[in-house]
Amino acid sequence: MRIHAARLWRHLDAMAALTEPDRPYTRRSFTPRFGEGRAWLANAFRTAGLETEIDAAGNLVGRLPGLDDGLKPIVVGSHSDTVPSGGRYDGVLGVLSALEVAQTVQAAGKRLRHPLEVVDFLAEEPSEFGLSCIGSRAWAGALTRGDLERKRPDGMTLAEGLVSVGGDPSRLASVQRKPGTITAYLEVHIEQGRVLENSGVPVGIVTDIVGIRRERWLVVGRADHAGATPMNLRHDALVGAAHIIAEASRAASETIAATKPLVATIGHMEVSPNAANAVPGSVTMTLEVRSGDDAAVRNFGDMLQGRTRDHLARLGLDLVRSEISHALPTPCADVIRSAIGEAAKALGHSALSLPSGAGHDGVFVAAAGPIGMIFVPCRDGRSHAPEEEITADQAATGADVLLAAILRLDESL
Amino acid sequence: MRIHAARLWRHLDAMAALTEPDRPYTRRSFTPRFGEGRAWLANAFRTAGLETEIDAAGNLVGRLPGLDDGLKPIVVGSHSDTVPSGGRYDGVLGVLSALEVAQTVQAAGKRLRHPLEVVDFLAEEPSEFGLSCIGSRAWAGALTRGDLERKRPDGMTLAEGLVSVGGDPSRLASVQRKPGTITAYLEVHIEQGRVLENSGVPVGIVTDIVGIRRERWLVVGRADHAGATPMNLRHDALVGAAHIIAEASRAASETIAATKPLVATIGHMEVSPNAANAVPGSVTMTLEVRSGDDAAVRNFGDMLQGRTRDHLARLGLDLVRSEISHALPTPCADVIRSAIGEAAKALGHSALSLPSGAGHDGVFVAAAGPIGMIFVPCRDGRSHAPEEEITADQAATGADVLLAAILRLDESL
Repeated sequence: MRIHAARLWRHLDAMAALTEPDRPYTRRSFTPRFGEGRAWLANAFRTAGLETEIDAAGNLVGRLPGLDDGLKPIVVGSHSDTVPSGGRYDGVLGVLSALEVAQTVQAAGKRLRHPLEVVDFLAEEPSEFGLSCIGSRAWAGALTRGDLERKRPDGMTLAEGLVSVGGDPSRLASVQRKPGTITAYLEVHIEQGRVLENSGVPVGIVTDIVGIRRERWLVVGRADHAGATPMNLRHDALVGAAHIIAEASRAASETIAATKPLVATIGHMEVSPNAANAVPGSVTMTLEVRSGDDAAVRNFGDMLQGRTRDHLARLGLDLVRSEISHALPTPCADVIRSAIGEAAKALGHSALSLPSGAGHDGVFVAAAGPIGMIFVPCRDGRSHAPEEEITADQAATGADVLLAAILRLDESL
Repeated sequence: MRIHAARLWRHLDAMAALTEPDRPYTRRSFTPRFGEGRAWLANAFRTAGLETEIDAAGNLVGRLPGLDDGLKPIVVGSHSDTVPSGGRYDGVLGVLSALEVAQTVQAAGKRLRHPLEVVDFLAEEPSEFGLSCIGSRAWAGALTRGDLERKRPDGMTLAEGLVSVGGDPSRLASVQRKPGTITAYLEVHIEQGRVLENSGVPVGIVTDIVGIRRERWLVVGRADHAGATPMNLRHDALVGAAHIIAEASRAASETIAATKPLVATIGHMEVSPNAANAVPGSVTMTLEVRSGDDAAVRNFGDMLQGRTRDHLARLGLDLVRSEISHALPTPCADVIRSAIGEAAKALGHSALSLPSGAGHDGVFVAAAGPIGMIFVPCRDGRSHAPEEEITADQAATGADVLLAAILRLDESL
């Protein structure tokens, strides 16, 4: 059984047309344009034979009954909202691949053992309410009363927003998917990086949605007149910060040999007083560490501090570290990763295991059962930009692997 | 012959009292408070027996005739204006030390061979007209018609400003001191750094007022999603910039062994996009190099680029350099440096040769004849701040060395 590649591509084009005209490809959650996309999807879900509804959390859910309705559903989906100016494939590829799988199963006259649910989760991207993953968060029981009172700039509350998309905040508890209530969750997504493209591999098997730790590193030296202070009397905070930046990059690069990849980034920094003629007195940086290995994420800062301590002491600099945030990694289930790998192999596609460095709805769906993700390459790793691009072949390969993996899981689980 | 230490200290206190009351110690040029300081100084000059006038460029000049009026004058002075909130000693110490020398000579009934001129140069600090060293600039013939049309925020032109302090812009050419028209120029100034204090030495003999070159260094990499881009696929502009910062510090520190000290500072930088979750795509930095050795200043950037080229290439980064400004160093004359050194030695003071990393009126006065500067320590190197502090002993030592150096030069030149 293979998906209908031309139909999938046609659907992607149809959804791409539903964009803010002056800002392709934009369907911001809770906007009229988002509603147009939802209406198109609901119609397509029904055309494919899915029992379709908006749940209380504003997720669009289409169901195919299984042969054994006592079994917990296999869930497959993604999101149809976008960031501003970016999202021709980010999210919607996963929703339409899920629809394509269901439609292919239906068209073949086949019934799965498990019920199959196709989901367009509400507002995976950061919304105007200052919150992301709103729909999947509700599934995890993690959408709080405080969240519902969040307001977007025009004053609308998230509770009102849910109503506007067909949800029902008063019944929010009813959508929670308790632990053990789903058999598996699978999602196809563009990689948003260049690993697959650089390797020439069409299928990525996600190992983990990484944990993310952010720390503030404040390097304190002494601001001095650049002309009147010889090199040997300086306590130049930027020279110390430079050593930390170089060591962070070196230390993270060395972890390539470790069990799970890790990235460390100093992406944000402020120099004070930041004047051409002043020796920098202090530098504030954000150290961000991501990996599927939480211990590695947690220990990285200590290790980096250890590696740079002597150098900072020699420069007469002080270091003040503080945690900004720490999110645990979400591992993808071995059984699902294996099914994806076997599916790709059976279809003759090479595959590569890699972490997802970005967050996804799966982080919240994982509260209900095992999850897995399939990445497809995207051109030059671009996402969240109008230039986001994949080929019809790449889309079809992802959906075919998704279908084959689901068929395997439907039998084995 | 020794200066009158208590009188000098009293004069410093008297001028310190002439400050914006809520913002000590402030006498901004062209303000009423500056006028009060000038009036006090003119009176003190006359009390000391100096023929006193405001020249066409707004400089306050007091003259003692010499035994041989055919000789060109020895000029001594500094400035009485301040930056906002800073200047209890910066500048005014040099004016009052010069006055003290003239007054001591007069009180001793001694006549120098050369005419002696005591000068309070107008607006050495950056003025509200966006220009510094206004009075000394006019002596060098470098105050242009365009400069005179500069306006301060309230709309007053510099030409009008000169009139307001007693100058005469229509006679500006008359104040120019052509090359060879002065025998020597000497100035006492606080060091504005910590070299003398750290060495426990009371007298600094300035070797050069340093040249300053500023370059913009733009490091161009590729902005990427920090989560989706493994370390080995990154072109992190900040990691490249960090290497440049570290090498600049290292290379400048190595020049300690060279003939003239050099400092290199990266004091200003901007990271783009400067977000915690983005691999930095570009970094703009200002490289500032200062030294009395112009060739070393000029070559530093090329040398630094050479030392970092391979590293940047390995990271896949491009470098774009552009010159922002380049000011030549002003050497202090050997004959004056020797006279200062001998004067200090004869008075039993240790002395140390060092460059002036900050600019001074001497840069412009040097167009007219040989210059020299005497530095005295200031507490913790602080200047341009209310905390600027020296002791009465330190002030007296500077003035005594100035007097003894002038007596030597008066005989030898």
